Amino acid sequence: MASRLEAAVETLIRVFHRYSAREGARRTLSRAELRELLRTELGGFLRWDAGAVERILRELDEDGDGELDFQEYVALVAALTVACNAFFWEQA
Amino acid sequence: MASRLEAAVETLIRVFHRYSAREGARRTLSRAELRELLRTELGGFLRWDAGAVERILRELDEDGDGELDFQEYVALVAALTVACNAFFWEQA
Repeated sequence: MASRLEAAVETLIRVFHRYSAREGARRTLSRAELRELLRTELGGFLRWDAGAVERILRELDEDGDGELDFQEYVALVAALTVACNAFFWEQA
Repeated sequence: MASRLEAAVETLIRVFHRYSAREGARRTLSRAELRELLRTELGGFLRWDAGAVERILRELDEDGDGELDFQEYVALVAALTVACNAFFWEQA
């Protein structure tokens, strides 16, 4: 049976593929797919504003294709995880 | 209510702190804490051998203090997530 950490890693993977497969290239997040993922999956962590998608793409779209591939998505989740840890836990 | 992705991020954070607080500095993983985390939480993903802890520390212990801080731990989980995605999903 998978541990909590392994189940969490699996969730990170499944969520990416649930959105990346919706339109266009199946293994990258288009702007629309990224917008939907941010709103639906990260609405509690991120203060949503219209510029969020462009800011994230500017920061993380390393290969400049205007999409987020899996590695770029993991960099987003990693940065969020570090920020959440600093916000929630470091104050404890 | 937290989404699946947010709950997974929270799990990544909670698992780190559950082990880092066991001995020594509360916000870093000592060798013993890292060994315990790898065995208990990542036994399904990682082929365990005695050299695993040293290899991971060599690769990820950026500040060379012989411990894994939260950011270094997230880099480990991110690398594992990318490897798992490549292994499980890219073959689909």
